[in-house]
Amino acid sequence: MPAMQDAARRLMLDCAMALDDGDFARWPLCFTADATYRITTRRNERAGHPYSVMWCDGQAGLWDRVEALERANLYDPHHYCHILSDTQPVAGTPDSFAGRTNFLLMRTMQDGSTLPFLSGHYRDTVVLQGGRALFRERVVVLDQCRIDTLLAIPV
Amino acid sequence: MPAMQDAARRLMLDCAMALDDGDFARWPLCFTADATYRITTRRNERAGHPYSVMWCDGQAGLWDRVEALERANLYDPHHYCHILSDTQPVAGTPDSFAGRTNFLLMRTMQDGSTLPFLSGHYRDTVVLQGGRALFRERVVVLDQCRIDTLLAIPV
Amino acid sequence: MPAMQDAARRLMLDCAMALDDGDFARWPLCFTADATYRITTRRNERAGHPYSVMWCDGQAGLWDRVEALERANLYDPHHYCHILSDTQPVAGTPDSFAGRTNFLLMRTMQDGSTLPFLSGHYRDTVVLQGGRALFRERVVVLDQCRIDTLLAIPV
Repeated sequence: MPAMQDAARRLMLDCAMALDDGDFARWPLCFTADATYRITTRRNERAGHPYSVMWCDGQAGLWDRVEALERANLYDPHHYCHILSDTQPVAGTPDSFAGRTNFLLMRTMQDGSTLPFLSGHYRDTVVLQGGRALFRERVVVLDQCRIDTLLAIPV
Repeated sequence: MPAMQDAARRLMLDCAMALDDGDFARWPLCFTADATYRITTRRNERAGHPYSVMWCDGQAGLWDRVEALERANLYDPHHYCHILSDTQPVAGTPDSFAGRTNFLLMRTMQDGSTLPFLSGHYRDTVVLQGGRALFRERVVVLDQCRIDTLLAIPV
Repeated sequence: MPAMQDAARRLMLDCAMALDDGDFARWPLCFTADATYRITTRRNERAGHPYSVMWCDGQAGLWDRVEALERANLYDPHHYCHILSDTQPVAGTPDSFAGRTNFLLMRTMQDGSTLPFLSGHYRDTVVLQGGRALFRERVVVLDQCRIDTLLAIPV
């Protein structure tokens, strides 16, 4: 369904911009109430290991994550710039879409230095609820097997 | 307006390819006569500072920039490779479009070494003039607050 | 032809995902039987030199490449993550499309470290055969003039 794929793609972009802008309260709103969000590594995925670097169960879990981020604030200030490649459709119906999207995440620290921080792909399942496209499942599969710093901000 | 967004997107690509190819005389032709082009930093934008790293007022200003680039030529030869992410629509009418586009700029020096040079986003206003899409305003918002070298070629 | 451009774009993505997944046997299937695939450098292209970093003549040549890759396996294990920018149309008919696409290739080694490995652009000619879009010609023009390691996996 091209319309559903377009809607899923806009959702991915809105979600990335919310994180890039540090507007974290917009991030959970990209997900359904029963959504799962997790970050894992390519190596774990290949090996079939269930281990996740980050796991949020339900939108409530996402809000917890955001609150921790805004309250605790113990990490070095930094911001992201998401570069999205194309989305490969995996499955689709008129009101759902599953696809894979490669990404590169640039990270800029407060001293102004920028480095490629993470790369990999999203495996997303997007559904329509009340006319809005929302993530029901988002799995972030990182190329990296070691993360060089506390992963504070979601990917 | 999807057609206007598509036209704006093609313009962004044409502009990036002109710079990547070192075909600088094609660059001012992407702008209206009264266009403004400026490069600023995310930090300045957030702080509301008007300071710009580069500022060109009108297409004449863009031509000045290109001539300086081709005549003075005091910089280390290098070339760019623009990687564009999706464009987020901000406003649109049948004959204008405003949007935001994340980018990553890879820079290759004459010795063949390549590094991520700049990242950030474009904030563009594109209009139709004589059937052609042209930038009326292009603001380049850099993630970096320090530029490690003279910014010779426009972004 | 927008439909042909869309089909070409999906082909580019399928080809990139096959290489990213290490599913090399899918890669030759993206090409016609009489396809040419070569990797060259921007500097060679500009100078009009015919020298190629890699050259495969016909799909048989691509299979040879894949077999060598899977049998010999003398390279340090690593995998790619392709980031594709937009495709600039160069020529098109209802059943063929030629275009240029900037790319960035991130490479992750077995120790989990990731670096930008290669950047540049594809110059593709895609044709329809039996209803499928396939590369008839793919030229990879690298920004880099030196490759810091054996180029084992195709780009």
